[in-house]
Amino acid sequence: MSGKPLISIISAGMSKFGKRDGLFGRELFVEAATEAYERCPNLDPKRDIKALFVGMMGESYEHQGHTGPTIADWIGITPVQAFRTEGACGSSATAIRCGIFAVLSGLADIVMVGGVEKMTHRATADVTEYLAMASDFFFEQWNGLTFPGLFAMVATAHMHKYGTKEEQMAMVAVKNHHHGALNPKAHMQKEITMEQALSSRVVAWPLKLYDCSLITDGASCLILAKPELAKKYTDTPVHIIGSGQASDTIGLFERDQFTSLNAGKAAAQEAYKMAGIDPSEVDVAEVHDCFTIAEIVAYEDLGFCKPGEGGRFIEEGQSQIGGKVAVCTSGGLKSKGHPVGATGTAQAYEIYLQLTEQAERRQVKGAEIGLTHNIGGLGGTGVVNIFRRG
Amino acid sequence: MSGKPLISIISAGMSKFGKRDGLFGRELFVEAATEAYERCPNLDPKRDIKALFVGMMGESYEHQGHTGPTIADWIGITPVQAFRTEGACGSSATAIRCGIFAVLSGLADIVMVGGVEKMTHRATADVTEYLAMASDFFFEQWNGLTFPGLFAMVATAHMHKYGTKEEQMAMVAVKNHHHGALNPKAHMQKEITMEQALSSRVVAWPLKLYDCSLITDGASCLILAKPELAKKYTDTPVHIIGSGQASDTIGLFERDQFTSLNAGKAAAQEAYKMAGIDPSEVDVAEVHDCFTIAEIVAYEDLGFCKPGEGGRFIEEGQSQIGGKVAVCTSGGLKSKGHPVGATGTAQAYEIYLQLTEQAERRQVKGAEIGLTHNIGGLGGTGVVNIFRRG
Repeated sequence: MSGKPLISIISAGMSKFGKRDGLFGRELFVEAATEAYERCPNLDPKRDIKALFVGMMGESYEHQGHTGPTIADWIGITPVQAFRTEGACGSSATAIRCGIFAVLSGLADIVMVGGVEKMTHRATADVTEYLAMASDFFFEQWNGLTFPGLFAMVATAHMHKYGTKEEQMAMVAVKNHHHGALNPKAHMQKEITMEQALSSRVVAWPLKLYDCSLITDGASCLILAKPELAKKYTDTPVHIIGSGQASDTIGLFERDQFTSLNAGKAAAQEAYKMAGIDPSEVDVAEVHDCFTIAEIVAYEDLGFCKPGEGGRFIEEGQSQIGGKVAVCTSGGLKSKGHPVGATGTAQAYEIYLQLTEQAERRQVKGAEIGLTHNIGGLGGTGVVNIFRRG
Repeated sequence: MSGKPLISIISAGMSKFGKRDGLFGRELFVEAATEAYERCPNLDPKRDIKALFVGMMGESYEHQGHTGPTIADWIGITPVQAFRTEGACGSSATAIRCGIFAVLSGLADIVMVGGVEKMTHRATADVTEYLAMASDFFFEQWNGLTFPGLFAMVATAHMHKYGTKEEQMAMVAVKNHHHGALNPKAHMQKEITMEQALSSRVVAWPLKLYDCSLITDGASCLILAKPELAKKYTDTPVHIIGSGQASDTIGLFERDQFTSLNAGKAAAQEAYKMAGIDPSEVDVAEVHDCFTIAEIVAYEDLGFCKPGEGGRFIEEGQSQIGGKVAVCTSGGLKSKGHPVGATGTAQAYEIYLQLTEQAERRQVKGAEIGLTHNIGGLGGTGVVNIFRRG
């Protein structure tokens, strides 16, 4: 098996995703951390965790910043050094990346990385506004563009250049709702039909309601350790064997094409190179399906298929459980939900379950190699991690 | 000289601090980065900088998050991996810390760390509200507490326990305005008298207007490199030889005492230990004087004097240029200004100038060892770095 462990995941946790009325984000994080602690009884969190990195996109939702120390306190590990990292919808993937830096630096053997967002208590118009802060203020927000509109431009460009169809986008929704219906922690555990997807109301043409991911509350976390320490804490570690991150202009208008997200593509190339693997070796992947078109673009950017062939890839069933690579077995942002700050580590949580045979009804049998692909904004941030069963 | 280099500063830049009407935060960062680039002509920023960490406290000021990629684009280093770090008023000190991790990890030889905040275009009430997001939402903000009120509780506790006087706090303001008057980049370059300080209007007793730091626009940055690479880029590197960071509860009410900030103290102990030096060896320090009482507490937490003796320390002139340790030669948050996200790296910028003999009229002659002490919120975050002339 290729890929030297860069770092090891010794535990992971995730809150139930959904509309979590009456709870604060910090309480959702406690739910995630408690699961991670319970999976790892040899760990004394306050003694052993040497740094905490928490991804959170927006302080406006709960009128609360300074998230690192707040979470540290609520999960019982004060006075640990505690950081918030922000990379829009990729915030907790950037937390993973910082956690990797911290462990490899030699200054922290074991760290917790995670993410949180509490969103559903706010009006949809407020949420749309807060999310839009990840786009360019004076060239995009100011002109009334929001993320559905931005991704609609990606979709129309892809349709124009490659002939991608609305039906193919709808297939992504149907697949991810099918997977999500198998995940007891998913926000929306229900199957949908092609007809429902295609006849749902238009949000920003060609994107309809079922092309859009969900506004969700949730938190997730991982405990990362030096590979040499992993066996002390668990019999079933999962190793990160490749990691990449890149940026792009946050303004879509500054780019020379709209049909690929450069930052995600560059991050993937870096991660594959480090892992020493080929895209065809990936068994299971969580990709950033904030809108269905984004998953189609991700197939191409990750090298699962050639540019322009993403529509055919979903149509041929290559990305479902049992296909060439099982994509978004958790249900993805589309059906599991997208509490933005929590998404990056929630993707890794799903891969952790898959590679330790804990994914129950959605288990991809014998999965050895997993991948996560987390995007911030419209690809201003791209982070890809590659995982191997320990 | 003690202290093995952990990392080296090969360049640094800072925008003019002040009321920078008509500019966006990203433009202020360009000003800082341009200075850093000009100081380091051997550096090809786009080729050589392998990661960017930008501290920014609040996206509300400019309705703009996703700061890492935005700044990367404006300073010409896209597609670099780009992060925003947030630790309230300590945001860019946490960026320095992440930058250290990244370089020591071996995954990035050279990184830029910095910070930015654009504040003065907002009404003071808005700024007060945005700053308050660094305190506890439901136990503090909800009850109407803001930072002047929180630090007033620290001041009254210190007065009660140690007999610290309003006059001693005013002396901190007078000293820092004296230093700031010597700094052409300071926001408020004017001397004040004891009488002015003591007769200024009460904000939250015992804190008066001149006990409070300034609402300011600004940006600052450092370029960090592996020590082995430093001489390739500069003849006058400054080395970070010790670094520490810790957290505390963000709620003041959860602590057992108000007269010391545990996170700052723990960070200092970690940094001194790593540097292998004693507080008495520090020649020049930038401490977190967000309110004058905070500087008095910092003297004690940093070991410049014993607990309870901070008032006497300023009264005896020990912290002015020419004293035992020159504190806040830049003018500090008090007179140079406090664009919150920019403050941590701006403190390091001042130390960089001092240790490379570029501090002009405020130069501490022969300074060899410098220290920065940056606090987030009411000490929920504490970061201390120790620097040595290269």
